Amino acid sequence: MLTAAYTGNSTISIAEAEPVTPQPGQVQIRVSYVGLCGTDLHILHGNMDARVQTPLVFGHEMSGTIAALGAGVTDWAVGDAVTVMPLDWDGTCPACLAGNEHICQNLDFIGIDSPGALQALWNVPVETLVALPSGIALDAAALVEPVAVAVHDVRRSEIAPGDNAVVIGGGPIGVLIATVARASGADVVVIELDPRRRDQIAALGFATIDPRENDQVAWVESWTSGAGADVVFEVSGSAAAVLGATALAKVRGTVVVVAIHPTPREIDLQRVFWRELRILGARVYQRTDFERAVELVADGTIPTELLISTIVPLAQTRAAFDDLESGRAMKVLVDVQNVEGLS
Amino acid sequence: MLTAAYTGNSTISIAEAEPVTPQPGQVQIRVSYVGLCGTDLHILHGNMDARVQTPLVFGHEMSGTIAALGAGVTDWAVGDAVTVMPLDWDGTCPACLAGNEHICQNLDFIGIDSPGALQALWNVPVETLVALPSGIALDAAALVEPVAVAVHDVRRSEIAPGDNAVVIGGGPIGVLIATVARASGADVVVIELDPRRRDQIAALGFATIDPRENDQVAWVESWTSGAGADVVFEVSGSAAAVLGATALAKVRGTVVVVAIHPTPREIDLQRVFWRELRILGARVYQRTDFERAVELVADGTIPTELLISTIVPLAQTRAAFDDLESGRAMKVLVDVQNVEGLS
Repeated sequence: MLTAAYTGNSTISIAEAEPVTPQPGQVQIRVSYVGLCGTDLHILHGNMDARVQTPLVFGHEMSGTIAALGAGVTDWAVGDAVTVMPLDWDGTCPACLAGNEHICQNLDFIGIDSPGALQALWNVPVETLVALPSGIALDAAALVEPVAVAVHDVRRSEIAPGDNAVVIGGGPIGVLIATVARASGADVVVIELDPRRRDQIAALGFATIDPRENDQVAWVESWTSGAGADVVFEVSGSAAAVLGATALAKVRGTVVVVAIHPTPREIDLQRVFWRELRILGARVYQRTDFERAVELVADGTIPTELLISTIVPLAQTRAAFDDLESGRAMKVLVDVQNVEGLS
Repeated sequence: MLTAAYTGNSTISIAEAEPVTPQPGQVQIRVSYVGLCGTDLHILHGNMDARVQTPLVFGHEMSGTIAALGAGVTDWAVGDAVTVMPLDWDGTCPACLAGNEHICQNLDFIGIDSPGALQALWNVPVETLVALPSGIALDAAALVEPVAVAVHDVRRSEIAPGDNAVVIGGGPIGVLIATVARASGADVVVIELDPRRRDQIAALGFATIDPRENDQVAWVESWTSGAGADVVFEVSGSAAAVLGATALAKVRGTVVVVAIHPTPREIDLQRVFWRELRILGARVYQRTDFERAVELVADGTIPTELLISTIVPLAQTRAAFDDLESGRAMKVLVDVQNVEGLS
C-alpha cells in the first residue's frame, strides 16, 4: 500500500509499505480522503521534531470505509463509512479521572504521536471510530475533524442564540467557527487581514472587518449598541490580535483561545479585571462534538464545496502543503486511493 | 467636622468642614473606622489623577452608625450600625441591563469618583447601606469591604469543598481570599516573597511557599498528586507571577485575576490552550458578597484582630499610609471620631 510520511528536514516521502493486520480491538480502514491542516505544516517544518518520531505517517483529518475488523470487534462491519476521532487517552491520569479524557495529561494524538491516515490501509483502535451516515460524500466527510474543533470551541464559549460573536482570523478553522456559531443562532463578524480571504468569507454570508482599514473596537461597539461582543474567538495566533481581543468583549464576555501561541503573549489584564472577562482555552474535541460535526457536514450546514480548494493524489502531498502554506488554499484534501503521479 | 482629603502632589489635608444635610434618599453616617487599601495608596501617589477630582475626601472601607435620615428614607433608624457598599451604578448601560450593575460601564465608585468615608459625617445613597448585626465590633466591621472583595473572588472561582487553591500574593486581600476559600472547604497554600508576611500567614494556619527557595510548580504538583490546583488566585500584581500562574493550574483549572495590572502582561497561552484553562477577571462585589462578608466578620471566621495592625486617629492618616506602603502593616484603620493630634 502507499503511505506519505514526514521523514525530517521538511521532507515528505511517498513509499510502498506492507499493510499490517489489525490487532485485537483495532479496525483497518481503507482511507478515502485526508485533509491537511496547520498542525501538519508545523510537523513538516520541523517545529514538532521534539515530539514526533520519524518517519511519521501523518494526517488526522480523514474519511474512509472499514476494510477489516480485528479480533473482538463487534458493532461494526466491513464497508461501513467512518471517520476517526484521533485521540487515545490513558484513562488513568487526573484529567481523565475528572472526565476530561480528550485532554488527557498523556494523550496520544493519532497522526502526531502515532501513525496517521496518509496510508491506504490504516489501523486504529475501534473506540476512535465515528460512524458516517449512508450517502454522505466522503470528500466532505474528511472535514468532520476540523468541524469538530469548531463545534468544541463554540460549545465551550456557551454562546447563545442572538449573541454577537467576533472571530479573529479567517482561515479554515476561523471560517468553521463562524459557520458553527451562526448555526447556533449567533450573529458573526470575521476579522481578517487578507483581502482574498475576506472575499471568500463574505461570499459565505459573513460580515468582515479589515482591521487595517477599520477601527475594530469602534466597529464592534457600534454593532453591539455599546455593549461589546458576547464572545471573541482568537484563531489568528497573532500577538497583536491577542492584545486587541479583550477590548472587543462585553462586560462578563468570553475570549476563546483557539490558536496555538508558541510563546507567551501580552494580554490586557486591566481590561480582563475591569470587565470581569473570561478567557477560555479550547483544545480538540469530545465525542459529542464529533457527532455534532457529522450532522453539520451531512445536513449541508458546512459549505464543504466552498471550503475544499483542491483534491490531490497522494503523490502530490508535498505540493499540496505548499498551496496550503501560501494561503492560496482554504482546505486541501489528499485522495489516498489515487495513485496518479507515482513513478 | 473633620475630613481627610487627597489634594494632589502626594498630599493629604486634614481639615474642618461643615456637615451637609442628607438629601432625599440619602443617609448621613457617623463614620467610626475607615480602612486604608492599595487603591487609596494609588490615589495618594497620583496614579489616578486622571480619574479623581481634588480635593477628594477618600476612603471606602468603613463602619459607622446612622446619624440622620434624608427625606423619604424608610426601613432604617438613627443609631443603626452600618457599612456601605460603595458602588453607584447608572442602571441603564448594557452591563447594568444584563444584571452586572456592580461593574456598570459608568460606575461611580464612592470614595474614588465621589467623596468617601474619611469624614466624621458622611452622606451616602440609602441603597448602598448594608446592615451590621448588633454587637459586632465596629473596628472589625471596617474590614467588611475587603472581605466582600475576597468573597466575590472566591465565589467567582466556583471553588468546591476539597479543592486545592493557590493564592499568589499574601497581602491583605490575598490573606482574606485564603481565609474565605478555606471557609468554603478548600485546601489553601499562599505564595509570598516576604518572610515576615509568610510568618504571619503561617500563624493563620496556612501552608506557604517561598517561590525563591521552592520550585512552586513541583510543590503544587506534589501537593495535588500530579493534577495541579483547581484554582489559582493572582493577587500579587507581578508580571512574573502572572507568567507562572498558568503552570500551577490543573486541566480545566481556573486562574482568577484579582490584582490590578496597569500594563499588559505576558501569559502562557500555550498552557491555557493545552489544559483548557479558564482565566477570570474579578472586580469588586455584589450585594450577596457584602452580606456574606458581614457574616464572616461577625462569626469570627475572619481573624480581624490579627489582620488589623494598627488604629490611628484621623490626623495620622498620612503616617498610616507610610506604614501601609512599607509593608509593615497588614491593615491600618483610621478612627475617624478620634481628634487626637490636631493642632
